[in-house]
Amino acid sequence: MQTDRRKVALVIGAGDATGGAIARRFAREGYVACVVRRSLDKLQPLVERIRAEGGEAHAFGVDARKEEEVSALIEQIENEIGPIEAFVFNIGANVPCSILEETARKYFKIWEMACFAGFLTSQAVARRMVARKRGSILFTGATAGLRGAAHFAAFAGAKHAIRALAQSMARELGPLNVHVAHVVVDGAIDTAFIRDNFPERYAQKDQDGILDPEHIADNYWYLHSQPRDAWTFELDLRPWMERW
Amino acid sequence: MQTDRRKVALVIGAGDATGGAIARRFAREGYVACVVRRSLDKLQPLVERIRAEGGEAHAFGVDARKEEEVSALIEQIENEIGPIEAFVFNIGANVPCSILEETARKYFKIWEMACFAGFLTSQAVARRMVARKRGSILFTGATAGLRGAAHFAAFAGAKHAIRALAQSMARELGPLNVHVAHVVVDGAIDTAFIRDNFPERYAQKDQDGILDPEHIADNYWYLHSQPRDAWTFELDLRPWMERW
Amino acid sequence: MQTDRRKVALVIGAGDATGGAIARRFAREGYVACVVRRSLDKLQPLVERIRAEGGEAHAFGVDARKEEEVSALIEQIENEIGPIEAFVFNIGANVPCSILEETARKYFKIWEMACFAGFLTSQAVARRMVARKRGSILFTGATAGLRGAAHFAAFAGAKHAIRALAQSMARELGPLNVHVAHVVVDGAIDTAFIRDNFPERYAQKDQDGILDPEHIADNYWYLHSQPRDAWTFELDLRPWMERW
Amino acid sequence: MQTDRRKVALVIGAGDATGGAIARRFAREGYVACVVRRSLDKLQPLVERIRAEGGEAHAFGVDARKEEEVSALIEQIENEIGPIEAFVFNIGANVPCSILEETARKYFKIWEMACFAGFLTSQAVARRMVARKRGSILFTGATAGLRGAAHFAAFAGAKHAIRALAQSMARELGPLNVHVAHVVVDGAIDTAFIRDNFPERYAQKDQDGILDPEHIADNYWYLHSQPRDAWTFELDLRPWMERW
Repeated sequence: MQTDRRKVALVIGAGDATGGAIARRFAREGYVACVVRRSLDKLQPLVERIRAEGGEAHAFGVDARKEEEVSALIEQIENEIGPIEAFVFNIGANVPCSILEETARKYFKIWEMACFAGFLTSQAVARRMVARKRGSILFTGATAGLRGAAHFAAFAGAKHAIRALAQSMARELGPLNVHVAHVVVDGAIDTAFIRDNFPERYAQKDQDGILDPEHIADNYWYLHSQPRDAWTFELDLRPWMERW
Repeated sequence: MQTDRRKVALVIGAGDATGGAIARRFAREGYVACVVRRSLDKLQPLVERIRAEGGEAHAFGVDARKEEEVSALIEQIENEIGPIEAFVFNIGANVPCSILEETARKYFKIWEMACFAGFLTSQAVARRMVARKRGSILFTGATAGLRGAAHFAAFAGAKHAIRALAQSMARELGPLNVHVAHVVVDGAIDTAFIRDNFPERYAQKDQDGILDPEHIADNYWYLHSQPRDAWTFELDLRPWMERW
Repeated sequence: MQTDRRKVALVIGAGDATGGAIARRFAREGYVACVVRRSLDKLQPLVERIRAEGGEAHAFGVDARKEEEVSALIEQIENEIGPIEAFVFNIGANVPCSILEETARKYFKIWEMACFAGFLTSQAVARRMVARKRGSILFTGATAGLRGAAHFAAFAGAKHAIRALAQSMARELGPLNVHVAHVVVDGAIDTAFIRDNFPERYAQKDQDGILDPEHIADNYWYLHSQPRDAWTFELDLRPWMERW
Repeated sequence: MQTDRRKVALVIGAGDATGGAIARRFAREGYVACVVRRSLDKLQPLVERIRAEGGEAHAFGVDARKEEEVSALIEQIENEIGPIEAFVFNIGANVPCSILEETARKYFKIWEMACFAGFLTSQAVARRMVARKRGSILFTGATAGLRGAAHFAAFAGAKHAIRALAQSMARELGPLNVHVAHVVVDGAIDTAFIRDNFPERYAQKDQDGILDPEHIADNYWYLHSQPRDAWTFELDLRPWMERW
């Protein structure tokens, strides 16, 4: 009985500002937030924050690139917590490099993190959702998913591939009542990384020139909430003053 | 004084189900709905419905392809009613034809209605919004704006051109704090036209297989409401069971 | 008898360097070059050059935006000279302007020249080609046909629309054995206009940094020559050092 | 001395009809064809055919997914045969599958073959070409590189990623005088695979309804031959009667 009421929102890559904000957003709507990153320890502040805000959260230290770990994670959540109604894949790996200097190891790692982990996790969840004939699968994309800029071969490759995955899933799973969408984030996000490494960029925060993770998160909730006669596959998000 | 509080939502092409639903949506949010189509008479049911729902509405019989009529319309609304905070261009002209049979007159008319009227009206409004440094300009697009299918040269041409206008405006006016967006509607909408001409398609309404104008309208409101650090330029809308 | 052997290549917009080079290229391959622009006088140097190179050329002073003039032109060429086997639409109108300053007259004119004239002329030729079940229809495009940059709403609108026309025609006429293609020219071309107005750009000519019209023309001939099991719809052309 | 005159065309994935035709095309132009696939034995017929046609060819049994094998291959060719002036990556892996049934192993393998091998080989060659400031890097693409169709998540992911690689390389290496291009093959190719598995499709060969590998190969030669003021990054190829 009670399980019917416990809806799970699973966020893979909840380590950064965006993933955390999405988890908190769904928790505020009554979803049980299941948050995942490789290091369990680093998830504690997020879990505590969700609980402090009155929500329910569970943290999982899982390497999303490992099929067995992914299978076990989904199994555990579905069996012990509740059905995954919303799934978010939010692992990025934006590390630019000249194509002449890029290492095979890094090229592979970026794909493995930003694409292969997305395949493994979304597929495992999709099987559950298709069986229930409901649910949302949401991918965090980037402009690099649409355009291969110089010095971004590895990141653009992974982001193009995950967008292709999202499109292909959307076309196959839409008619099975599973909503698949892809969010193109185009601009700097308000994170410690931007603050520490791009201070000039970060200074634009005063004028709303960088993306607020809370506002990004609102769009994931919005996509999840769309009635099925009018589903969005793709939307872009960028600050008003961003050049594009 | 009071004028400061009266925000106008102007909908060009409020003759169909979508335009009407958008006008009603903004009216429910407290905006004064100014609705426009060529024939004033046909707007009366919409105006009455908005008023019955507790909103304020004004109808204008204007040919949006005529620069003088457009100028006078914007002048009148801004002077007598209030500042246009949200603008929606929603005139379509989806009339397929073999390229071998298309008449020059029809090719021109479709562009004039679905694109040139959009240029005239959005530009007139943009000048006001830029002066105030705020506002939203929202265009109704279609899949034909992204792809030129066989037998759709005229409609695709107009829709490609209006999308180019929207993109160009977004890039120029975004940094002036005016939000420009383009909604790609991909699928049949719940209208009398679909009901009467495509009964098999319309029968999918029972399973949410055609777009509800109210749900389309929600997306226009959503776009208008986005905080400026995370603006969307483009989103698509289609029923869950639509092939694409 | 002889008429069967006289193949016509018709170039609309033969006033600039590119159109002229295309006409000369086809003339060198044995085609009768029919070259068109509004002012007949200005075509004389081109006609004389083609003849000096051993080719056959005819000049026509025609306003390609006028349906009757276009009909008469095609009628005359087909009746008096020979079947149009290759058709090139090469009228541009790259005049940037802020969307806030653009005049309705100029917005219209740019579309009329760069798109509507393309519709009128390509349609008139397509009808002849479809009846013969052979021929090529080639459009000169631009990056503005793919992307609406700030200050390019009018030009981008026309170029998007002509690309939509090309796509739609290609999908309808391909299976009728008429090859429709679209060439995306991305970069400055070696013209008097660039030389006089963008001297810094023009200085890159020494390093092959601007497009040679003869090389552009080679691609039109190449497209026309492709066997029908491997037709190209779209190719882009840009100098090696161009940023994109 | 003589080495300066021996130009190498290296084709990775010369096992199929297309790769073989490309190798033969470059050999006819005087290039030494270096052809690569995993199984050396299977390359013998191709090598013999090139030699019978008066060309020079060398076969290499190399697993292009192994960095060390790739490094050794490029080293050997450059040291013993001559500078690689044209490079073609032509490994595909078009194996459709429902996203619900796709195995992690197959998803990985398809990416490894159709993308990662392309990264390893094109990078190794690019370093040589950049040092010489000349050369062409040509990728065989597919419609799946532009669109993620249902049941094609793995193939579309790999093809999207390789297109991103090509774009990124083109933008970085173009200004270093290395020409990078991407050929979008859209349609069935005249191969034993199509003949045996899609007999109805193959029957269209009589009407030129499937792509002739020789004609595909002509386009690779064409791209390699383009003068650098007018380089193409991308062109598509499809039969005249193909629906798209």
